[in-house]
Amino acid sequence: MADYYEIALKKHEEWKGKISVELKAPLENKEDLSIAYTPGVAQPCIEISKNKDEAYKYTWKGNIVAVVSDGTAVLGLGDIGPEAALPVMEGKAALFKRFAGVNAIPIVLDTKDPKEIIETIKRIAPTFGGINLEDISAPRCVEIERTLIEELDIPVFHDDQHGTAIVVTSGIMNALKLVGKKAENCTAVISGTGAAGSSVIKMMKNLGIANIYAFNKEGLLSKSEMENYNFVEKEVAEITNNENERLTMAEAMMRADIFIGVSAPKVITKEMVSTMKKDAIIFAMANPEPEITYEDAVAGGARVVGTGRSDFPNQVNNVLAFPGLFRGALDVRASKITEEMKLAAAEGIASLISDEELSEEYVIPNAFDPRVAEVVAKAVAEKAKEQGLARI
Amino acid sequence: MADYYEIALKKHEEWKGKISVELKAPLENKEDLSIAYTPGVAQPCIEISKNKDEAYKYTWKGNIVAVVSDGTAVLGLGDIGPEAALPVMEGKAALFKRFAGVNAIPIVLDTKDPKEIIETIKRIAPTFGGINLEDISAPRCVEIERTLIEELDIPVFHDDQHGTAIVVTSGIMNALKLVGKKAENCTAVISGTGAAGSSVIKMMKNLGIANIYAFNKEGLLSKSEMENYNFVEKEVAEITNNENERLTMAEAMMRADIFIGVSAPKVITKEMVSTMKKDAIIFAMANPEPEITYEDAVAGGARVVGTGRSDFPNQVNNVLAFPGLFRGALDVRASKITEEMKLAAAEGIASLISDEELSEEYVIPNAFDPRVAEVVAKAVAEKAKEQGLARI
Repeated sequence: MADYYEIALKKHEEWKGKISVELKAPLENKEDLSIAYTPGVAQPCIEISKNKDEAYKYTWKGNIVAVVSDGTAVLGLGDIGPEAALPVMEGKAALFKRFAGVNAIPIVLDTKDPKEIIETIKRIAPTFGGINLEDISAPRCVEIERTLIEELDIPVFHDDQHGTAIVVTSGIMNALKLVGKKAENCTAVISGTGAAGSSVIKMMKNLGIANIYAFNKEGLLSKSEMENYNFVEKEVAEITNNENERLTMAEAMMRADIFIGVSAPKVITKEMVSTMKKDAIIFAMANPEPEITYEDAVAGGARVVGTGRSDFPNQVNNVLAFPGLFRGALDVRASKITEEMKLAAAEGIASLISDEELSEEYVIPNAFDPRVAEVVAKAVAEKAKEQGLARI
Repeated sequence: MADYYEIALKKHEEWKGKISVELKAPLENKEDLSIAYTPGVAQPCIEISKNKDEAYKYTWKGNIVAVVSDGTAVLGLGDIGPEAALPVMEGKAALFKRFAGVNAIPIVLDTKDPKEIIETIKRIAPTFGGINLEDISAPRCVEIERTLIEELDIPVFHDDQHGTAIVVTSGIMNALKLVGKKAENCTAVISGTGAAGSSVIKMMKNLGIANIYAFNKEGLLSKSEMENYNFVEKEVAEITNNENERLTMAEAMMRADIFIGVSAPKVITKEMVSTMKKDAIIFAMANPEPEITYEDAVAGGARVVGTGRSDFPNQVNNVLAFPGLFRGALDVRASKITEEMKLAAAEGIASLISDEELSEEYVIPNAFDPRVAEVVAKAVAEKAKEQGLARI
């Protein structure tokens, strides 16, 4: 790993930007200028002034996403500021283009105030076809995303919340199919109730998981301790721990068919895994060191194991989700991205592995599988139409 | 001309964006991802978090300009809103790349409040190496630009104010050389005291023109009528009409060596031109119909005539100025663009025409002259260094 850091530093200095702006319109002579710029450009301006939706017809609005961050929760580095967040946002923008042909540009903000962040994004929104929020700390990110979804007519999506959730959901779908269980009969333990955790929990609920035990650093969430929770944890407590039990992690694990970790290193042990229900499914995604190592999870008897790392099977890489998700939303000019569209994205990802191919080490497709973005885009676009949220 | 409008509409629909975002970093395999994205990307993030100026070293910050508009003064169309301004901003962004290799992206704003515009641009500023303001109505644009120049440490430049001013100044420099006059001995009449006019007047003053008669719609500006002026007109009145005279346009023209129009069609007549000083110089740039036609100006006896149109000699096209200007400012990481740097840009443009080439019909180089941006960039960068405003 250390090698990557040194090479990355050198490469970033060499690139001075992982993306660039390039011309699509020719500008080689007076004629070209008169068409792409004055006087000809007045005509699309006039058309759009009559109906602002025509911007989708005559500009790149329908295929440009802002990758917006305030730099408060960058990778594992924390609150490092807007400038220091730029390399990640540029990388994200590059991934959008590479995996789904979506133009994307970084926007980093010199404010950490949620009200100001919301205000600023609303003011620049006419420029864009969608907003991808990135690396904004929890629980502020939830409030920011919700308000923007409510108040803007373009899709707004916080990848740190939902990207991992969508991909891990696709993995769970395939793992359940492999082991022959139904979500309705399963219990899940989820470690982490922050940005990603709360979205994973919501998706697991929507998938039909019967009971979820959600743990934060203090332990199992329960409706009897609402006064200790922030608004995100409160929402989690509402839909988890059906019987309002008090359990330790070890006790909860004994009842679990599924463990999902989006929290911290070494939260569970090999011994705990060995007490789980038969054909246990484990996704341990704390970064860079997971809740349990791939080896220990397997040694503990888990049947399907996934991590966030590319050097083990079943990598939960959110590049499987966000490019196709925005591609689909932009293609039908969806006004928002719903829970149902996220679930459709997960189904799309899962569908790429045929019954014949499905195995313990292959429940999630490879990040570079060229079919992924298209399948996800199609699933998301269809769901948007079904929900009456598509504008074309 | 009508043809251009139809072709432009069709072409814009075909392009769906005159620019696109493209990859500079390879993203073909796991290895590439680990370098351009996680985990490697953490390293440039860490370096920048220690010193935010390192963003210039590891990201595209040093070569990305925002083309920002609120859509209040788009071309001759007026206040058509942010979405309808997009085709112009995209075109401008394309010109930045085409003529000076500067990456640029449109940002259109859903607010017309100068305070909010300033606030929004300040909040997104860490993303960019420079801000090009565009098509913001006067006199608000002057206040917005000044505040941003004051409060940001990256160059902020309102092209509608200064772009035309720089190019026409280059034309005046060469025209004076051609006719053998010195600025110090010349009188100029300037029609238009708005965004462009006030900047032209300031540059003419800095060029050394002895006396300037500035006209707005109501007539000649004078220090005795300050109470009728907005703050921009007040500043104009302070530096013009030295003797505080009351003259009609016809009377002023009789004393003029130079006429510059950035106002409205048909403000002056062939007869007025015929009363000007010997070897009269006329730049009539009202768009699309100038203050006097090229033919009438010549028929009236003017020796050098320029317009904003590409179908006549001496076209004042601001594409001669802004790309090289930003190129130069970005190259030395100038903290601002000063009056001196604008004058240096004008000198750079003028210098491209040798004494041998200089003629009545060739005082301004062609917009597609490949030497322009480089010469302007060099002149601007050198002036920034001289003024102690260069940071590298």
